[in-house]
Amino acid sequence: MTNRTIGIIGGGQLGRMLAMAAARLNYRTIILEPQADSPAAQVANAQITAAYDDPEALAELAKLCDVVTYEFENVPVTAVERLAASVPVYPPAKALEVAQDRVTEKRFLNASGIETARFHAIDSQSDLEAALADFGGEGVLKTRRFGYDGKGQKVYRKGDTAEGGYAALGSVPLILESFVPFVREVSIIAARGADGEVRAYDPTENVHRNGILHTSTLPAAIPAQTANAAREAATRLLNGLDYVGVVGMEFFVLADGGLIANEIAPRVHNSGHWTEAACVVSQFEQHIRAVAGLPLGDPSRHSDCVMTNLIGGDIDSVPAWLARSNVLVHLYGKTEARPGRKMGHVTEIMSIKA
Amino acid sequence: MTNRTIGIIGGGQLGRMLAMAAARLNYRTIILEPQADSPAAQVANAQITAAYDDPEALAELAKLCDVVTYEFENVPVTAVERLAASVPVYPPAKALEVAQDRVTEKRFLNASGIETARFHAIDSQSDLEAALADFGGEGVLKTRRFGYDGKGQKVYRKGDTAEGGYAALGSVPLILESFVPFVREVSIIAARGADGEVRAYDPTENVHRNGILHTSTLPAAIPAQTANAAREAATRLLNGLDYVGVVGMEFFVLADGGLIANEIAPRVHNSGHWTEAACVVSQFEQHIRAVAGLPLGDPSRHSDCVMTNLIGGDIDSVPAWLARSNVLVHLYGKTEARPGRKMGHVTEIMSIKA
Repeated sequence: MTNRTIGIIGGGQLGRMLAMAAARLNYRTIILEPQADSPAAQVANAQITAAYDDPEALAELAKLCDVVTYEFENVPVTAVERLAASVPVYPPAKALEVAQDRVTEKRFLNASGIETARFHAIDSQSDLEAALADFGGEGVLKTRRFGYDGKGQKVYRKGDTAEGGYAALGSVPLILESFVPFVREVSIIAARGADGEVRAYDPTENVHRNGILHTSTLPAAIPAQTANAAREAATRLLNGLDYVGVVGMEFFVLADGGLIANEIAPRVHNSGHWTEAACVVSQFEQHIRAVAGLPLGDPSRHSDCVMTNLIGGDIDSVPAWLARSNVLVHLYGKTEARPGRKMGHVTEIMSIKA
Repeated sequence: MTNRTIGIIGGGQLGRMLAMAAARLNYRTIILEPQADSPAAQVANAQITAAYDDPEALAELAKLCDVVTYEFENVPVTAVERLAASVPVYPPAKALEVAQDRVTEKRFLNASGIETARFHAIDSQSDLEAALADFGGEGVLKTRRFGYDGKGQKVYRKGDTAEGGYAALGSVPLILESFVPFVREVSIIAARGADGEVRAYDPTENVHRNGILHTSTLPAAIPAQTANAAREAATRLLNGLDYVGVVGMEFFVLADGGLIANEIAPRVHNSGHWTEAACVVSQFEQHIRAVAGLPLGDPSRHSDCVMTNLIGGDIDSVPAWLARSNVLVHLYGKTEARPGRKMGHVTEIMSIKA
């Protein structure tokens, strides 16, 4: 058991939790992140403070690390490709490419036999008008790239005017997605090892507020068949990308139990934070195991649970959470509680599975 | 929720696990430790690399921290007293004083109504001979101070010669303890909050090898009455010391279920490592909660489990442990696997409590 070094691009809370999981398995971690004293760097062995695409910083990271991973999907693909020439980088660049563009993503999912909402690529105002006409005047207009937590979106209802819509989102490449008549939202966290083995945690039922994940509940109120379909979709996706690491995959659930894939995140995912409280091996350790070439851990769940995000001023509720039994409180070391900023999360263990 | 700073004296694995628990609750940590790049410093915000009793280093630690704690019981009491003049230090210096000297410890336990082995303080060869005569020629001779993991001990059986015994252990203050006819060894991890509340985890049954903890098993094979007696003893001890933080307390169990206190450790304890796998709030978080003035967490256990230490070359068994289900592997970031050195531990979740 040598003490190898894992590079992590991105210094946020996901990098922080990855760094702690890596430490428990004897890996050293180096964070690449422009913000000094980042949440991840506070618990990592070292931080290279530089832009994610800084060529010298990337060369240094490659030199110091045995393998490199990332904690967010907007890492420049060129940076990952540059790194991958001299050090293994997981998940593969292809996964980033697919996840960074909503049109590419949906096309890849469809080609993998995974159903998504209907969509049109929008590159002009006239594209938008034609697409809205095709969807009966309804749909969600989103930027193709760099959207997250509901940012860069506009909803069209019947009767809304399309006028100025393309310019309002910045005259950048967009996508119009048709509405999906979903009854709930679920996600699945799955991992693929270097040997091609795939393991998935139980699907969670997610509730969003203001476009940001609010709660993840286990078990999700879905039939076993729907849960199995989510596992199968994740397996197809991971194998199709020759993926190594953890992926988060979000779905809409239809009234008949059918699944519509919404989006994928080629990284550990907010809706998998409950795994640290209710499983022996968390999604963070699972990701480290995968990228380090270790066998994947057992994703079994020992308890039912509910994870709640602490966003912005929610941090003030921490004393109340700490006073409750059966709640794991996990904070991210951020000093400033800006509105919409993820400050921490809590997982309540609801019951013990028989 | 401000991001306050906790100082930790000692940079070993206990400090490492405390630092990670502190990070999850938004505390920054600074380690005082003479060894550079210590296990704790790898996951802490900063390390002051200096001797534990270095006056300048202690002054710096006091200046930078809101509260200071320690991860081992051989911290110089003078250092803690010096610190305590300018920053709160928990557990209190009195606990260190009691734990650092086996005679003081037993006298304090006895005065608190907690039974121990019979003992004699030994300050000369003639003391040793008189004490052995009193115990029928049998007993365990130990140094009063700075013993751990079975080091600095000599066992006398009927017929052994006492000659040279005092000199053989260095002509330092010693203790002769009478044999206890125990059927098993248990320990209890308990915490006392700043408000005086006491909470205890379930007692564990411990097996030692070569004087070092080998396994801790939950539940311990003891009657409820014995478990309650362990909780009561811990509560008396903690209240008697006006303690704040986690304590580890080891007992011998007699055939009739009676308890004989063996020793106390004024810190998180190896026999409490299982709590990170089988409880929502681990002993490390519990200690951080106590010293930071937060409410104590629920010490309930959701699963039966067995913790096994990885000592020295046991580190080679890690790949096999990683390949098993329901095992949490936790390694300490030490590069050199010397014989007798604690390299990590594993906790197997054996069953789910109904």
